[in-house]
Amino acid sequence: MTTHCSLAQALRRAATVNPRGIASRCQGRQTSWALTLDRVQRIAALLRETGLAPGDRVAILAGNSDIYFQLLFAIPWAGGIAVPLNTRLSLEELAHCLDDSGSRFLVVDEGFTATAARLHALAPAIERLVHADSSGCAQGPGPFEALLADATPAVDAGRGGDDLFALYYTGGTTGRPRGVMLTHAGIITNTLQWAFEIGVARDDLLLIVAPMFHLVGGLNSVAATVLAAGVCLMPRFDAQAVLQTIAGERVTKMALVPTMMTAILAHPDIAGFDLSSLRRISYGGSPIPESLLRRTLEAMPQVRLYQVYGQTEGGPNISVLKPEHHLPGAHGEGRLRSAGQPIVGTEVVILDADDRPVPAGQVGEICVRGLTVSPGYWNQPEETARVNRNGWLHTGDAGHLDADGFLYIVDRVKDMIITGGENVYSQEVENVLGAHPAVAECAVFGVPDERWGERVHAVVRLREGCTASTEELIAHCRGHLAGYKCVRSIDFRTAPFPLSGANKILKRELRAPFWETRPRQV
Amino acid sequence: MTTHCSLAQALRRAATVNPRGIASRCQGRQTSWALTLDRVQRIAALLRETGLAPGDRVAILAGNSDIYFQLLFAIPWAGGIAVPLNTRLSLEELAHCLDDSGSRFLVVDEGFTATAARLHALAPAIERLVHADSSGCAQGPGPFEALLADATPAVDAGRGGDDLFALYYTGGTTGRPRGVMLTHAGIITNTLQWAFEIGVARDDLLLIVAPMFHLVGGLNSVAATVLAAGVCLMPRFDAQAVLQTIAGERVTKMALVPTMMTAILAHPDIAGFDLSSLRRISYGGSPIPESLLRRTLEAMPQVRLYQVYGQTEGGPNISVLKPEHHLPGAHGEGRLRSAGQPIVGTEVVILDADDRPVPAGQVGEICVRGLTVSPGYWNQPEETARVNRNGWLHTGDAGHLDADGFLYIVDRVKDMIITGGENVYSQEVENVLGAHPAVAECAVFGVPDERWGERVHAVVRLREGCTASTEELIAHCRGHLAGYKCVRSIDFRTAPFPLSGANKILKRELRAPFWETRPRQV
Repeated sequence: MTTHCSLAQALRRAATVNPRGIASRCQGRQTSWALTLDRVQRIAALLRETGLAPGDRVAILAGNSDIYFQLLFAIPWAGGIAVPLNTRLSLEELAHCLDDSGSRFLVVDEGFTATAARLHALAPAIERLVHADSSGCAQGPGPFEALLADATPAVDAGRGGDDLFALYYTGGTTGRPRGVMLTHAGIITNTLQWAFEIGVARDDLLLIVAPMFHLVGGLNSVAATVLAAGVCLMPRFDAQAVLQTIAGERVTKMALVPTMMTAILAHPDIAGFDLSSLRRISYGGSPIPESLLRRTLEAMPQVRLYQVYGQTEGGPNISVLKPEHHLPGAHGEGRLRSAGQPIVGTEVVILDADDRPVPAGQVGEICVRGLTVSPGYWNQPEETARVNRNGWLHTGDAGHLDADGFLYIVDRVKDMIITGGENVYSQEVENVLGAHPAVAECAVFGVPDERWGERVHAVVRLREGCTASTEELIAHCRGHLAGYKCVRSIDFRTAPFPLSGANKILKRELRAPFWETRPRQV
Repeated sequence: MTTHCSLAQALRRAATVNPRGIASRCQGRQTSWALTLDRVQRIAALLRETGLAPGDRVAILAGNSDIYFQLLFAIPWAGGIAVPLNTRLSLEELAHCLDDSGSRFLVVDEGFTATAARLHALAPAIERLVHADSSGCAQGPGPFEALLADATPAVDAGRGGDDLFALYYTGGTTGRPRGVMLTHAGIITNTLQWAFEIGVARDDLLLIVAPMFHLVGGLNSVAATVLAAGVCLMPRFDAQAVLQTIAGERVTKMALVPTMMTAILAHPDIAGFDLSSLRRISYGGSPIPESLLRRTLEAMPQVRLYQVYGQTEGGPNISVLKPEHHLPGAHGEGRLRSAGQPIVGTEVVILDADDRPVPAGQVGEICVRGLTVSPGYWNQPEETARVNRNGWLHTGDAGHLDADGFLYIVDRVKDMIITGGENVYSQEVENVLGAHPAVAECAVFGVPDERWGERVHAVVRLREGCTASTEELIAHCRGHLAGYKCVRSIDFRTAPFPLSGANKILKRELRAPFWETRPRQV
């Protein structure tokens, strides 16, 4: 009992040690830690009044805002488990997440009221809709604010430690998104590790422009609370708005994917913004191309860069490439191409197909153990046992460690595409594409794309006597999948696919010609 | 299973990410992380060969050394639980710790072979003695080194998480020392919190001159391993040797009690040593007097000071007073007199006698909750339930929090004396003194002492018709107690003791005259 730790506790501590400090900045609103604690207790009271019982799942479908930030704490404060939904998913996919998680509640903001109404028909398990009117303050209090004002602050439900605080849905090799279970103790420990490695502290202002429904947004929110620092929330990525916000709010740290960095650096007026407050940028998803690194350090010479490798199942952070390994001298050692070293408190090994460690330099599956690793997938004991076998989280990524413990990712075992910072699982797209009546066989993989890093590409063999155009097949995908998962280009073939000894399509043979001109970034 | 973390894991990570880095420096020996891992595996093999089974307790009676450092990891690696013994305890007290912990093994260095032989007679549960010859390397390998060379490195026993890694014995209000249980996850999390708050990282060299049998030494050892940093071990405190070591080894961080700082600053040749490598000093036990602070910053202007408040039961670190609150401007706010703010991830509240929170500014018992708090006392479920009631660790210290979450310690509820950095529980001394045939009644408490901060003082009422001198009573104490616990001065009285309504001796009335000339430092 005394080893208890919880998000509620972290929030109380922030309100104790930094009560007047600004917790969140969003669209002109500034909210102190003391007020954040009060609002979280009131939102928790509203959730309780609508019938939330301990352990109930509460889904969130909303853009980034200070209310989203408060919800991440109010749901566990009330005793619930948050289920942040990817706003880009199709109705069908959203309904799957609601159904799979058994969510009894769905909280939406004003941008998703119409979607929520349609979801209500698809997912009958949803009992309540709560409308968080994040625009309320700007135009005078909306109905949500009026409800909050009338609420009696709730007492913390007391959940923490190994209790779940959230399910984050992520794609799987088998197709449909799976809910990664995350515990209070796991996320708090990961923020401590992250804060130590990245060097973030109470005087930092963290810009959250990546979507809150990804764990990066969640981690930054929890970290700000554990540290009693501040967050600045932006509803969507826009290079001009990001530059204005950094200059106007004096942002000190932001987390981006390389495509966002490219867009920011390409802004014609970048030199006109005062970016001197920015001290740290962490980026994930892929190594930074040397040209982008050079341009970043030219535009913002004071900035320290951190590459973070992780996955939701890892809690999420697994390894960090530090600023010193981004400096010119480090390139010769090839470390800029690595994902850095395991973060403090986390152990990484490379295992072969029989789960035996391989020597330094040899490629195998990247496996992880530590305080922050997820206990598994919600309601999927078999899939959980498969990835967590022998006490190791099997990441599905192939890589090797060098003699100094630097991790190099060489391929993704689980056949995943990263496009614009979003993970797309080939199998999920293949399942949808293969269900089209004209498609006999298909293979989906990532090909290089100037803007998104990778683009979803398909090779299709049509059934005898059938016809289908690229446009028709893409439209079919759009009917079932989030836009970012849809096929962007298709090659048709009549010859049989190259097959492995086990009669699986040899996708790497199909993929190779696309990647000949440049090494694949993973 | 995948949330597993352990000291073995931390050590493997250090040997992976910093294999050639120096883990330990001790009496001229430098040992890399790769070699430390190898030696730990071999020491673990020796322990297994002598019959160690999972969960067995292994007591250590030795001075600080690199072998002590390796033992702290080798014992859990082999599957055991370390029991670091206070080398200052009397034979009787040592036998109690061995007996209470049920230790099957005792590891001693060459300085304690005679003590070990006598203990073997007193504590028949001890089955094996292993002699760690730390002086071996200097004069050619001793027998212990020869055994290590022949050993086959052992496989990690796989204990971690909530498994115990050590029992640290600490005094109790009821008299005899109690074993505080510490888990793998707790100590690793506390080192992460500590490293974050103190700002220690891989390029640090931590001087361990405080005894390893206290958790401060253990924490610094585990922290160095979690961070893959280095430790420099000194067998005992000596101001001249400390100054030489800082200059010679380029120490960057040290942990001291204020009496050690006083001794260092009083060294006549302090200006002759190059102390420029030293960046951080943490101190505990009591606030720093302003005169000492001023002299420290004059002698070492580059040093950042951290006051750490903790107790073994807390894991140990609870709050930290940061360098900025040691600066001249902070004195006016009185924060130099505080114990700082709760560390990241740890919650502190002030509770009244009914365990209800009191408002800011009001005095009550300091209570703690967090990932690092000990699960309790070994084999003492009732005492554990008493201090851990309602989900809070009750520290036994009285204090208050101000409106900004700064913690002020105003008294020790559990009637403890801190002398030269060691805790002495009055009750334990009173039990021994009261057992003397001439003593009718006695009260023991701390009085101001120039050198040790506090001195153990007794007020004694003799039985009618009996006589006893101060020397005789002190000699009686020496027969049963560690030297530092013994009474140093005695006042005799014939009048009855002042009593409370509950017929308890009103010790504060006896103590008050001694503390009139200066405020009590707690």
